[in-house]
Amino acid sequence: MSDKQSIQICVPPSIGLLNKGLGAFDRAIEASDIAQLDWNLLREDLSLPSAVLYEDKLLHNLNWMRQFISAYAVKLAPHGKTTMAPKLFRLQLDAGAWGITLATAHQTQVAYAHGVRRTLMANQLTGRQNMAAISALLFDPDFEFHCLVDSAAQIDQLGRYFADQGQHLNVLLELGVDGGRTGVRNGQQLHSVLDALSRWSNSIALTGIEIYEGVLDDESSIRAFLRRTVEITHKLVAENRFQRLPILLSGAGSAWYDLVADVFSAASFGDSVEIVLRPGCYLTHDVGAYQKAQARILKHNPIAHQMHAGLLPALHVWAYVQSIPETGRAIVGMGKRDVSFDSGLPVAALHFRPGDGSPQLTPNHWVVEKLMDQHAFLRIQAADDIRVGDMIGFDICHPCLTFDKWRTLPILNADYKVIDIVQTYF
Amino acid sequence: MSDKQSIQICVPPSIGLLNKGLGAFDRAIEASDIAQLDWNLLREDLSLPSAVLYEDKLLHNLNWMRQFISAYAVKLAPHGKTTMAPKLFRLQLDAGAWGITLATAHQTQVAYAHGVRRTLMANQLTGRQNMAAISALLFDPDFEFHCLVDSAAQIDQLGRYFADQGQHLNVLLELGVDGGRTGVRNGQQLHSVLDALSRWSNSIALTGIEIYEGVLDDESSIRAFLRRTVEITHKLVAENRFQRLPILLSGAGSAWYDLVADVFSAASFGDSVEIVLRPGCYLTHDVGAYQKAQARILKHNPIAHQMHAGLLPALHVWAYVQSIPETGRAIVGMGKRDVSFDSGLPVAALHFRPGDGSPQLTPNHWVVEKLMDQHAFLRIQAADDIRVGDMIGFDICHPCLTFDKWRTLPILNADYKVIDIVQTYF
Repeated sequence: MSDKQSIQICVPPSIGLLNKGLGAFDRAIEASDIAQLDWNLLREDLSLPSAVLYEDKLLHNLNWMRQFISAYAVKLAPHGKTTMAPKLFRLQLDAGAWGITLATAHQTQVAYAHGVRRTLMANQLTGRQNMAAISALLFDPDFEFHCLVDSAAQIDQLGRYFADQGQHLNVLLELGVDGGRTGVRNGQQLHSVLDALSRWSNSIALTGIEIYEGVLDDESSIRAFLRRTVEITHKLVAENRFQRLPILLSGAGSAWYDLVADVFSAASFGDSVEIVLRPGCYLTHDVGAYQKAQARILKHNPIAHQMHAGLLPALHVWAYVQSIPETGRAIVGMGKRDVSFDSGLPVAALHFRPGDGSPQLTPNHWVVEKLMDQHAFLRIQAADDIRVGDMIGFDICHPCLTFDKWRTLPILNADYKVIDIVQTYF
Repeated sequence: MSDKQSIQICVPPSIGLLNKGLGAFDRAIEASDIAQLDWNLLREDLSLPSAVLYEDKLLHNLNWMRQFISAYAVKLAPHGKTTMAPKLFRLQLDAGAWGITLATAHQTQVAYAHGVRRTLMANQLTGRQNMAAISALLFDPDFEFHCLVDSAAQIDQLGRYFADQGQHLNVLLELGVDGGRTGVRNGQQLHSVLDALSRWSNSIALTGIEIYEGVLDDESSIRAFLRRTVEITHKLVAENRFQRLPILLSGAGSAWYDLVADVFSAASFGDSVEIVLRPGCYLTHDVGAYQKAQARILKHNPIAHQMHAGLLPALHVWAYVQSIPETGRAIVGMGKRDVSFDSGLPVAALHFRPGDGSPQLTPNHWVVEKLMDQHAFLRIQAADDIRVGDMIGFDICHPCLTFDKWRTLPILNADYKVIDIVQTYF
């Protein structure tokens, strides 16, 4: 097909000294050596603020979703954009994930560089350098990649570029809704996209259908969108439009994956269609929008309802109380540089005084009232036992926007010992 | 004092392959070699989205602030937390900055590792590992460091730690306001802090006074706070409380630095007091809160009023139009992972179609209506000449929260050629 070589991307081998939230060490080390440093959060071995993951809760969530997915006999391609942590990609692949979902060419490069060989880029591929990045990876015959198309203009750009390279690009037709984000809205747009695909059949292969239902916010609209998606899939199957068997049918963010599993798996496609769900936030969960979504799922979804327990928040940002300048207000050393704030402020969860035995649950009235770049304002009461130098562990409300504040996140065991570390690549 | 050696921190030597927003290269390279790759934004050599800095505007802003500072005969310690880009620290130090301000022990380590030898940590130092990090740096006799204190509890913790190390820590007394953030509110708190300082005079040295006026939002309250600060400084000078000559008097974020310069420099301290201002956002500026603040400064401050031009926005995030799914809506490949959104959404500034000559100003009605994790919703009109694959350069509304989304930012010359690159360390 071409005499070009597949690109070898070198992965930085070690944890650098200049990442925040770590302990003391005097030279860059391998991630696999972190446990030997014997850092413990409760011994104040970490420089706070620090974002940490709890191993037991991560594994609980991993198994919960594996059971859910398996009960519906669908596939999982967790969205990697949430964590951009290759170690967590690997964890999910080893637990049976079909592949990893990504949002950009850059993210796809990161996944590839860390050994991921099946990716779904749930986004339109646009721009010369982004196409070049994907093209370079496609020279590896073991690499499977699918991205989205929703317009003739975009398909023409992709077709021209990949035809010039003598390569084939797999694309999923994205369906969308009025007032939503990307995706084909109507029959006319669909017709135009299918026409463009016919023009570029030498370089562009239609391998499935994709939707993102998370732009809608009520169950009946989502079910209607899912039914329309099923209809169009049946129609295009009948027209023999697809160049992959099984055909891919993919949907689901982290809030409505139950409905997608329900409607798609009830559509009786049989073995000719592979249903791929893409929730990304389930692995760490949160105490914000996804916790609310999960409560709905546990209540109404028959599979989730009979499962033992729901998802658990597996990520905390720990920080110090640095000042109690007024009765009723503590200032904590954690800010917008450290934690998400776009769908709810962080929520105080655990309180620990260095030297004491173990963290305690915080009183319910300890509420974060405001976040500045580097500080949180915590509402307290005059009688509360809280001091400068105390440590507070905060639950978070949006994993994606918390992960991207950190380059390294220690993984703790139940004794708060650092047993591993994940690196992120944003 | 001790037989411990000062810690040598190694700085990662090169630009890695897995950073977003760059062009193609096949092995990690030195930042100084970036220009040789001959990347040009307009030739689509960069993988978008990409956050870029414009050299001419950076230098304009650098000189503007240098003139302003020099007209008031005060010192500049720009806040490094904004960019966390050591190359921009160096640029400002070479232009005469007194030192660099930082917000955390981790940020101070980063600055030190890149050669900064005078730092003001405009924050309370708290926690064992954070104290240890600063202690390690203080074994270098060429390193000058000041941090804040505002409570006896905090001073006792610092005093005990640094006494154990046989070291001296320089601290600034932070004054605050009711309803504000950190800082001593009243005479009773002041008394308690001064008492604690007396207890630890062997290990803690009071070197000045610090405030952050940016917790207030109107001129008269700020002037009152500044006058109180001047009074307390005079009082503590008279009481011979300080252990540095000149005594440090520091204030000013990026919005009210004119008032701080005005009131502090009018206080006639003479050579015994060094006035240090800390604006951090002036270097890249924005089109949000700081542009508004700058308009006020240009209008009312006599020095700024007579200067040639104000600060200029020097940072753009460029992204591709990836879909135009509805009349009136374009979807652009830039989201909350790429740009600040906490004090205003990004503002479309330049429009470029690959293959055309040069970017054009965008119509005023192209407005970002919504930002998701990886997408922006741009309001357009049916008749507009905009296509999938077009590039849009966006002004931003909060430099701090944009910088921390990027590990590398190309610097462009007036021809949009990449002539340098800055690395960030968040």
